Amino acid sequence: MKLYYAPGACSLATHIALNAGDLPHTLEKVDLKAKTTENGADFSAINPKGYVPALELDDGAILTENIAVLSYVGSLMPALFPAEGMARWRTLETLAFISTELHKSFKPLFNPAASEAEKDEAKQTLGKRFALMEQQLGGRDFLIGDGLTVADCYLFVTLFWAREKFGLDLPAGLATYYAALRDHPAVAKALAEEKLG
Amino acid sequence: MKLYYAPGACSLATHIALNAGDLPHTLEKVDLKAKTTENGADFSAINPKGYVPALELDDGAILTENIAVLSYVGSLMPALFPAEGMARWRTLETLAFISTELHKSFKPLFNPAASEAEKDEAKQTLGKRFALMEQQLGGRDFLIGDGLTVADCYLFVTLFWAREKFGLDLPAGLATYYAALRDHPAVAKALAEEKLG
Ligand SMILES: N[C@@H](CCC(=O)N[C@@H](CS)C(=O)NCC(=O)O)C(=O)O
Ligand SMILES: N[C@@H](CCC(=O)N[C@@H](CS)C(=O)NCC(=O)O)C(=O)O
Repeated sequence: MKLYYAPGACSLATHIALNAGDLPHTLEKVDLKAKTTENGADFSAINPKGYVPALELDDGAILTENIAVLSYVGSLMPALFPAEGMARWRTLETLAFISTELHKSFKPLFNPAASEAEKDEAKQTLGKRFALMEQQLGGRDFLIGDGLTVADCYLFVTLFWAREKFGLDLPAGLATYYAALRDHPAVAKALAEEKLG
Repeated sequence: MKLYYAPGACSLATHIALNAGDLPHTLEKVDLKAKTTENGADFSAINPKGYVPALELDDGAILTENIAVLSYVGSLMPALFPAEGMARWRTLETLAFISTELHKSFKPLFNPAASEAEKDEAKQTLGKRFALMEQQLGGRDFLIGDGLTVADCYLFVTLFWAREKFGLDLPAGLATYYAALRDHPAVAKALAEEKLG
């Protein structure tokens, strides 16, 4: 597999999952402005939607969309995505929440043209959504069951943005969770590989 | 199963899927402003996130998030969500695109406080995203394979909004697809049950 990624972008979630599952893969960095890759390829030809993550499967097919790519990686390493029972649906539900309600709500913060009012509103929304995640976590170490899943990989990225890009405060339980995940070998390796220290 | 829905909201996608799969279910209408249901229940206690769809499973558990609820319904009726091979991942990828890129882009159109500029920008974004769906459809009758899947159910809802709530133009191929789906028995039944004619 090959992961097309941009440092610190949402593709970091898949990067962490690939490391956690010890799944053989290569990485190709994308310049999201120029829509080219570090190997000089035209990224728009690889993913016409122009965004990361894009995962090249072993047969050459390109899979896109965080939820689909994370689920695919999880299917190769069931510890990362419970394959059966209610845990399966809770994992997918949590991925969908993170994608549609958390990830999306960062948009004004990433947009240099957004007004202060829009940014403040986004921060308020994020505060409410993080509070829901804190509640779901309920003081445990992981969102689903007692091990790392792709839902944690994706939530980690939004917490990374909150803390290290935008200096937002996190509720206490999420701050503890974030600090512990940052030391997880799969996370530390992905951060180092993306040169995010 | 019981589907908590609001007429014409995104829960319509699950409603169509339940009809298409001939899956036994009841419907309970939600007043999204008052956060109460037609049976007088407090919807915030049912889904603390306050939005539809919410699906009550046969053991009483509540599942939320369009992507998770549609995938769950699809797991009960594999014609609606291919369980194996690349079609499985293409279905999930398409659901994720519709949810994160299409559904979300309607937000300013639904928001009475949005400016005309914001609405125009949303319409332009939607135009680009519909063009991508038109391309994926490639003149076929359904998005994945040769039968209705949950991806069609969800795309239908966004086309319904575009055409019947906001009077947007659709690319020719999507307009044909939309008209054909509107006559699909599962769709016609869901529209009638939600009193959308
Ligand atoms: N719908 C996509 C969105 C992915 C996305 O937002 N990617 C961002 C990075 S976090 C990106 O590549 N943005 C650059 C662009 O859209 O030009 C998904 O859920 O995977
Ligand atoms: N993240 C949720 C969002 C669902 C959603 O946007 N539901 C809308 C109807 S289309 C709703 O109930 N809005 C009312 C509210 O949020 O108060 C999902 O993907 O299912």
